[in-house]
Amino acid sequence: MKIEIVKNILDANDQVAVLNREFFDSLKVFTINIMSSPGAGKTSLILETVSRLESPSAVIEGDVASSIDSEKMAEFGIPVVQINTGGNCHLDAPMIREAIKKLSLNGVRYLFIENVGNLICPASFDLGEHIRIAIASVPEGDDKPYKYPGLFSKVEAVILNKIDLMPYVNFDLERFKKGIIAINRNTKIFLLSCKTKEGIEVWVDWLKSENPYR
Amino acid sequence: MKIEIVKNILDANDQVAVLNREFFDSLKVFTINIMSSPGAGKTSLILETVSRLESPSAVIEGDVASSIDSEKMAEFGIPVVQINTGGNCHLDAPMIREAIKKLSLNGVRYLFIENVGNLICPASFDLGEHIRIAIASVPEGDDKPYKYPGLFSKVEAVILNKIDLMPYVNFDLERFKKGIIAINRNTKIFLLSCKTKEGIEVWVDWLKSENPYR
Repeated sequence: MKIEIVKNILDANDQVAVLNREFFDSLKVFTINIMSSPGAGKTSLILETVSRLESPSAVIEGDVASSIDSEKMAEFGIPVVQINTGGNCHLDAPMIREAIKKLSLNGVRYLFIENVGNLICPASFDLGEHIRIAIASVPEGDDKPYKYPGLFSKVEAVILNKIDLMPYVNFDLERFKKGIIAINRNTKIFLLSCKTKEGIEVWVDWLKSENPYR
Repeated sequence: MKIEIVKNILDANDQVAVLNREFFDSLKVFTINIMSSPGAGKTSLILETVSRLESPSAVIEGDVASSIDSEKMAEFGIPVVQINTGGNCHLDAPMIREAIKKLSLNGVRYLFIENVGNLICPASFDLGEHIRIAIASVPEGDDKPYKYPGLFSKVEAVILNKIDLMPYVNFDLERFKKGIIAINRNTKIFLLSCKTKEGIEVWVDWLKSENPYR
């Protein structure tokens, strides 16, 4: 007798993620899952990025509570849907499946998913995105890749934001980079500041080059 | 027929938390659960605080991975036990129960528990502590109480760290305070900088006054 072993608890999520990805591909919507600690600059990065893309973008905002970030997006005329998880510490694929019903994606070529501010839990949930981005910020310190390896090991690019604060805090850039390369040798690392705009063009150029539908 | 309804999934944790708290009380160890985003300054605050207390302290360090923070504690001769959660996004009461077996608490009057860096999940788990502290930091932004109300609503004090960075970022202190008071009217709010040491004495004096065993 063969005993079937159910692989893991994420299978239901993963199945919906596959459907989401097929849907995005059918509409040629390149989808980016952005993850970071609270306050690292996810919303600012999305705003700076969208304003530099030639093709239309849309945004899904994930937060435990409030609609602060989606209001910022709406101010700039960016189509946005807010997901309030009501205590849940991450987005999952079924939440995205519900959200995209409320978003017109015709002609949209970039869909940014701003995950809940959390360096741990979001890493375990495939949303159906095409690429994953982690943002770290200078005032958080250079030890983040060592303390939160799960998330930093699973992303295509790491953005180090708030480099304008480098003169005012202790931050060892080589230690930070070394920590990332040790767990994720192939990831891209971008240094930038959403405040001074330094480094943003380089990141946006790379993002465009990754989009097969642009 | 009376149908018994099991209250919630936290009951097992809560039962162990009660045992932990009884244990701390029996040894007269005042126990403080410190929670924040990654990089807000939990370790720095504990180091600054311990050096200003007259009575002996000990520390339990919680991290997903690494022993970076406990090594810092040990450098200063502070008794410390590291808990690596191995992916888990918070500490729970059974982890603390295991950790205290490895820590000599005789004569210790302050036990600091540095939770995993996460503004969401740790709020749901009673560890058996006497008080809970949330740290926010200036570069994270003034909107944190609005986005993460669960944690900020459950603490006896909120510390706003890194006030030395105030001149370099946009931070509306009134908005931040208003957000906290709206969800937690009785909490204390301390503004300080572990870098410049501004404000630390006021916080330490309050902490001492809260300790019935000092």
